[in-house]
Amino acid sequence: MSELQLIDDLVKLARSYKDPKTLLGPGDDAAVIDLSFGPECITTDQYVENQHFRHRWIRPSDLAARCLSATVSDLAAMGATPRWLTLAITLTSDQDRDWLMNFGQRLGQILALWNIDLIGGDLTRGERCSICMTMGGTAQKGRLLLRRGAQPDDGIWVSGNLGGSAAAVEYLERGGKNQNLVVDFFSAKHRVLLGLALNRSGVASSCCDISDGLLTDLTSLLHEDCPGALLDLKRLPVSPIATRVSQELACSTRPWVLNGGEDFELLFTVPPRREEAMGDLSEALAIPLTRIGTMAETPGIINVEGRALSPAGWDPFRDS
Amino acid sequence: MSELQLIDDLVKLARSYKDPKTLLGPGDDAAVIDLSFGPECITTDQYVENQHFRHRWIRPSDLAARCLSATVSDLAAMGATPRWLTLAITLTSDQDRDWLMNFGQRLGQILALWNIDLIGGDLTRGERCSICMTMGGTAQKGRLLLRRGAQPDDGIWVSGNLGGSAAAVEYLERGGKNQNLVVDFFSAKHRVLLGLALNRSGVASSCCDISDGLLTDLTSLLHEDCPGALLDLKRLPVSPIATRVSQELACSTRPWVLNGGEDFELLFTVPPRREEAMGDLSEALAIPLTRIGTMAETPGIINVEGRALSPAGWDPFRDS
Repeated sequence: MSELQLIDDLVKLARSYKDPKTLLGPGDDAAVIDLSFGPECITTDQYVENQHFRHRWIRPSDLAARCLSATVSDLAAMGATPRWLTLAITLTSDQDRDWLMNFGQRLGQILALWNIDLIGGDLTRGERCSICMTMGGTAQKGRLLLRRGAQPDDGIWVSGNLGGSAAAVEYLERGGKNQNLVVDFFSAKHRVLLGLALNRSGVASSCCDISDGLLTDLTSLLHEDCPGALLDLKRLPVSPIATRVSQELACSTRPWVLNGGEDFELLFTVPPRREEAMGDLSEALAIPLTRIGTMAETPGIINVEGRALSPAGWDPFRDS
Repeated sequence: MSELQLIDDLVKLARSYKDPKTLLGPGDDAAVIDLSFGPECITTDQYVENQHFRHRWIRPSDLAARCLSATVSDLAAMGATPRWLTLAITLTSDQDRDWLMNFGQRLGQILALWNIDLIGGDLTRGERCSICMTMGGTAQKGRLLLRRGAQPDDGIWVSGNLGGSAAAVEYLERGGKNQNLVVDFFSAKHRVLLGLALNRSGVASSCCDISDGLLTDLTSLLHEDCPGALLDLKRLPVSPIATRVSQELACSTRPWVLNGGEDFELLFTVPPRREEAMGDLSEALAIPLTRIGTMAETPGIINVEGRALSPAGWDPFRDS
């Protein structure tokens, strides 16, 4: 049983009423509701103790940054401007007021920086800590970056670099104590400006964020008219964290780069005639953009040597 | 340390950016964001295993109804029409696909009945089950039922009856097996039509829902110009569940009625000159409406014999 299958089944059962004002329901990075001055994109994400993080290796302030990066990433992938947040927290008795205040302080700093308004929330107690964020953002009328839209021969692009989060988590899970090695993992970042630029310019034919791992998320861009992708593994931009951790642990970066979740970079496709715009875009935003492959008519994801690549990214329900 | 204090402190830290389009931030039943065709109310609520429910006494389908009633109640208390829902679920390995599908099926049935569109969500796994719902609804432009607005001498009113949820939970917690005794607790209900009617007619000077207990929620209607309330305890409408359970357990209904959480009824105030409209309203909606007291200039909540009544409602952080 996979998460996607569970979600599909649940949505089939639970989404029995469809509002004509909902322009896009479940299935993309965020839902869209029709509002007269521009669609409002809304997304929900949760972060659960011992599933997404452990208290022994993440401070509350860093957890706040991490949760925000995860949530805002969904709106970036839609080409929307984040505007509001609701926050539900379950605290355990081990956590004290200081923990919550440290969480809140960092949250407030980042929200102010990003112009996001915390408009509501819920706080309760339980046996495990969890954070649930719902975020809304405004898109330009008639313009959204959707997952479906790529055509064969479109280039496959990623922003930034990959594998850093998975490497940091593995390092911390194994008891690594050198925070400097993985400090980037704890920083707050987003690709909202890139999403807006891709959306406004119309240069991308499809887009999603990398939260479940490159291969898993790339699969979500495939569709019946464009069911395949060819990846050039040598071109994959490897995170400096992944490189540092792989040296420390004496292992390969590849699994982290291909299947590591929570990179929160954008993965998007660009038609060949629009590719020349990419250099200027990268320079204007000071964000590395790398062409890592090509969409194809042949089903499945393969590397340039013709070997099939199987997604093994984040899926909490995989083992059941 | 109380929940309200924690929330106040957290909001002070975390709400460092305020959007001019946010008409109402944290502190009322839901937040309101300015949208050109009418304000959109948004609320977030979570339901946590062993805190709000136990699997041994609630089926997934009943849990779905319970969570929805809790969430929609916040929008009813604003006088808004619920329109969309996002849903985040943490499942434990004890729960299987059947559990989730039963949850989804009942959810879908109720959402269809209530015209609410499930527009997004998140599903993950953890060591404890939890449900987080964020719901949005549209209010008429310029009209909202707020908590602040009551004046001294305004009548205090409640819809329906009180104490049923607390009685049912106590019965079930003590191992009670007679589901017929508490079957109403598991039904889906909301007071949206009442909220809309109170809002449209302008008859209520303030309103909230009863989710933390009558006395606690009544406290949220007090403010510096109207800091007190006089309650006539004999007039409190007692839930038939509470009466049945009190007979079974040989105890008083009073603590449940005064401090029992999750009644999900509306608590509102009506100026004396508008009271004559209440009979027609009750009849038109087929909802019992009871005047249980009067707002006062003297600070604090007292009963008609002059004894002070102290809130002891739901607060997961009370004991810390």
